[in-house]
Amino acid sequence: MSITAPAGFTAAGLASGIKASGAFDLALVATTDGVPVPTAATFTSNRAAAAPVQVSRAHLEAGGGLASGFVVSSGNANAATGARGRADALRMCEFAAAGLGVAAERILVCSTGLIGIPLPMGPIEEGIPALVATRSGSTRSAEDAATAILTTDSGRKEVLVEYPTFTVAGMAKGAGMLAPDMATMLAFLTTDAEIEPGPLADLLRIAVRDSFNSMSVDGCTSTNDTVILMASGRAGVVDPNVVVDAVTEACTTLAGKMLADAEGASKIVQVRVTGARSDGEAHQAARKVADSLLVKCSLNGADPYWGRVASDLGSAGVDFEMDRLAIEYGGTTVCRGGIAADHDSAAVAEHLAGPLIDIHCSLGLADGDGVVMGVDLGYGYIDENRTTS
Amino acid sequence: MSITAPAGFTAAGLASGIKASGAFDLALVATTDGVPVPTAATFTSNRAAAAPVQVSRAHLEAGGGLASGFVVSSGNANAATGARGRADALRMCEFAAAGLGVAAERILVCSTGLIGIPLPMGPIEEGIPALVATRSGSTRSAEDAATAILTTDSGRKEVLVEYPTFTVAGMAKGAGMLAPDMATMLAFLTTDAEIEPGPLADLLRIAVRDSFNSMSVDGCTSTNDTVILMASGRAGVVDPNVVVDAVTEACTTLAGKMLADAEGASKIVQVRVTGARSDGEAHQAARKVADSLLVKCSLNGADPYWGRVASDLGSAGVDFEMDRLAIEYGGTTVCRGGIAADHDSAAVAEHLAGPLIDIHCSLGLADGDGVVMGVDLGYGYIDENRTTS
Repeated sequence: MSITAPAGFTAAGLASGIKASGAFDLALVATTDGVPVPTAATFTSNRAAAAPVQVSRAHLEAGGGLASGFVVSSGNANAATGARGRADALRMCEFAAAGLGVAAERILVCSTGLIGIPLPMGPIEEGIPALVATRSGSTRSAEDAATAILTTDSGRKEVLVEYPTFTVAGMAKGAGMLAPDMATMLAFLTTDAEIEPGPLADLLRIAVRDSFNSMSVDGCTSTNDTVILMASGRAGVVDPNVVVDAVTEACTTLAGKMLADAEGASKIVQVRVTGARSDGEAHQAARKVADSLLVKCSLNGADPYWGRVASDLGSAGVDFEMDRLAIEYGGTTVCRGGIAADHDSAAVAEHLAGPLIDIHCSLGLADGDGVVMGVDLGYGYIDENRTTS
Repeated sequence: MSITAPAGFTAAGLASGIKASGAFDLALVATTDGVPVPTAATFTSNRAAAAPVQVSRAHLEAGGGLASGFVVSSGNANAATGARGRADALRMCEFAAAGLGVAAERILVCSTGLIGIPLPMGPIEEGIPALVATRSGSTRSAEDAATAILTTDSGRKEVLVEYPTFTVAGMAKGAGMLAPDMATMLAFLTTDAEIEPGPLADLLRIAVRDSFNSMSVDGCTSTNDTVILMASGRAGVVDPNVVVDAVTEACTTLAGKMLADAEGASKIVQVRVTGARSDGEAHQAARKVADSLLVKCSLNGADPYWGRVASDLGSAGVDFEMDRLAIEYGGTTVCRGGIAADHDSAAVAEHLAGPLIDIHCSLGLADGDGVVMGVDLGYGYIDENRTTS
C-alpha cells in the first residue's frame, strides 16, 4: 500500500525539525521525471482557509490543472499567519520546484498542525532539498511520506486499489478531526490512469462527496482540509466512470481509517436517511443526526432513546412530516408512523452495545437517500480536546 | 417573584401522578375571572413539533390572540405520540376550559419530558379540575405552578420586573436543555399592561430573539419549546416600546437562570461578534462559535487556543475575511489582523480560569452585532446525557 505504487511517482519523508519530538514532519510526492501531470484538488470551504490552501488553489488554477508534485509539512498548520504565512507557503513550493526544475506554480503545498504560529522556515528550507534528493518510487520512501504527514494519528493511513488496467493509491492523515493540533484532514491520491484535468476534477469531487464529506466527527471544518489526486497517465487511457469507482473506494477506505482512529471515540455510527425530498436533504438530515451532541452521548451510553433522533430530524431544515417517520436501530424498527413501535428491545440493546451502530431513518416523503458516518461522544473526546498544550 | 404578581392572574400546581417520584407535575395559569386576554406565544421551529405545540398554535390562531390560560404537564413530553397525542393535548385544554367556563380554544397547553410515550391521561384528567378549584393569586400558588413545570432543574426559575406603571412576571423550566428528559425550554410570562394581541406578539418575538434565542447549550432544538406571554390589561395602556424592555429583561433573567443551571457545565461563555455584515450574520457567527465542540472543550480546559474560534468563524457561512479578524478573551486581544497578537497571557489565563468567559470577535467588515451565550463541554454533560434511564 504505497502512494508510489502507480507508475510514475516518487515520494520522500523526513524529520526536518518542525516537530520538537523529532518525528517525521516533511513529505514530498512528485512525478518521477518532474514533468507536470493532470492534478485535481478539493479544498476546505472554510473562509479562514490557511495560507497553503490559498497558494495551492492559485497554483492549480495557474497551472491549468497540471502539477509536478506537492510538499506537505506537519506540526504547524501555517494558518492565521497572514501575509507572512502566504510567503512561507509559496517559498515551500519554490524550494521543491527548484529541486525538480519546474516553475513554482507546478507545486502544491499542504500544512497541518496548530493554528496561529508562523512556520519555522529554517528547518523546512533545509528539508525540502533533502526530500528532492532522496525521493524514490520505493515502498520505503512512500511509507516515509505517509508517516511524515501524520500528527497524532495512531499510525499510517494508506490504501491501494488495483484494477486490471490501472491502480489508485492513497495516503491520509486525520485521527478523526479530533486531536486539537490536527483538526485537519489531508488525503493524497495517485493513479497511473490517463485522464485529462477536467474529468479528473469532476471525478475527485464525486469521490470526496461520497467519502470524506459523508463523515462527521465534530462538525468542525478545518482551515487546512485538502485532497489532492494526481494522474500520471502511465497506464494509458481509462474510462473516467471506472476511475471514479476506484478513487471513491480509495477515499472511502481512508475515511474509514480516520473514523476508526478517532481518538476519544468508542463507537462508529452510520446514519442513513431514506425517503427524503432529495439526496441533498437526506444528506443534510443524516449529518444533523450524526452531529447531534445528544445523539452522540446516547451512542456512548448505548441508550435506545430514539426521541432525540426524531427531534434532530425535525430541526434539520429539511422537509419532514412526523407522522411518516420510521426509525430503525440495527434493523429493528423502534418508531413507525412517528410513534413508538413495539420491538425486540433486547435486539436493540445488543446492537447498541457493539462498536458499529446503524441508524436508519425513513422520512417517507420521496426517494432521496444519504449516509453520514459519525462517532459517539465520551470522556475521551474531552480529554483529547480540552487543552492544546 | 410570582407569576401572579401582575394583577388579573391566578395559578396552581400539584402532583397528579405523571411523575413516579410524586413530585409536582401539573400546573395552571389563568386569568382571575377566566375572561380571555391578549396572549402571544412563540413555539419551537422543530418540524417534529410535539402535540401540545400543534394544539396551542391552532388555539392561539383560532382565538385571535386571546386566551384565558394555559395548562402545563411535566415528566412526559407528549411528543412523537401521533394522533393520540394530539387528542390528549386537546383533552387537557377541554378539561381546563370546562373548569373555567370558556371554549377549549381559549386554553393553551405545554408538556415537557420524555419523547415517544403516551401521556397518562387518568391522573391528568383528575388533576386539572383540582387545579381549577385551587387556583389563586397567592405567591404560594404561583410557587406551586413554578415547581410543577420543572423536570430535573435544580430549583424554581422565576422573575419579577417592576416598572412604575406595570409589572412583568415569569417562570421557566430548562436546566439548560441538558438533561435527557428535559431537553425542552418552557417560559411563561404575565403582565398587567394593556396591549393588543398584534403588538404583544411583536414584542414577544423581539424579547425571545434577544434572550432565549441568543443562548446555546448544545445546539439542539427541542420538540416542545414554548414561550407564552399573557397581558391582563389591569394596569392600563402602556407604550409597547417600554413593555418590550421589561419583557426582554424578564426573558434574559430566566435565560441566565437556565444557563446557570446547565447541569454538566462548569462555565458560561458569552460570544460577542461585532463588525459583521449584518446583525443576522453576527448572530449566526456567534452561535457557530458557541456551538462548536472544539471551542466548548477548550473552555472546559481553560485553553487559550483562539485558532478554533477563527476556524469556526470561517466556516459559519457568513462574510468573513481572515486578515480583518480580531479576537479578545476577557478584553485581552489575542489575535489582530488575522494573526497572533502579542498579549498578556497571564491575564488571559486568569480570565479563562473563571466561571464567566467573554469572547469578542471583531470581523471588521461592517457594523453587525450579535451575542450568544453558551456553556463549556465537560464530563458532566456526558454523564447527564449518555442514558435516559
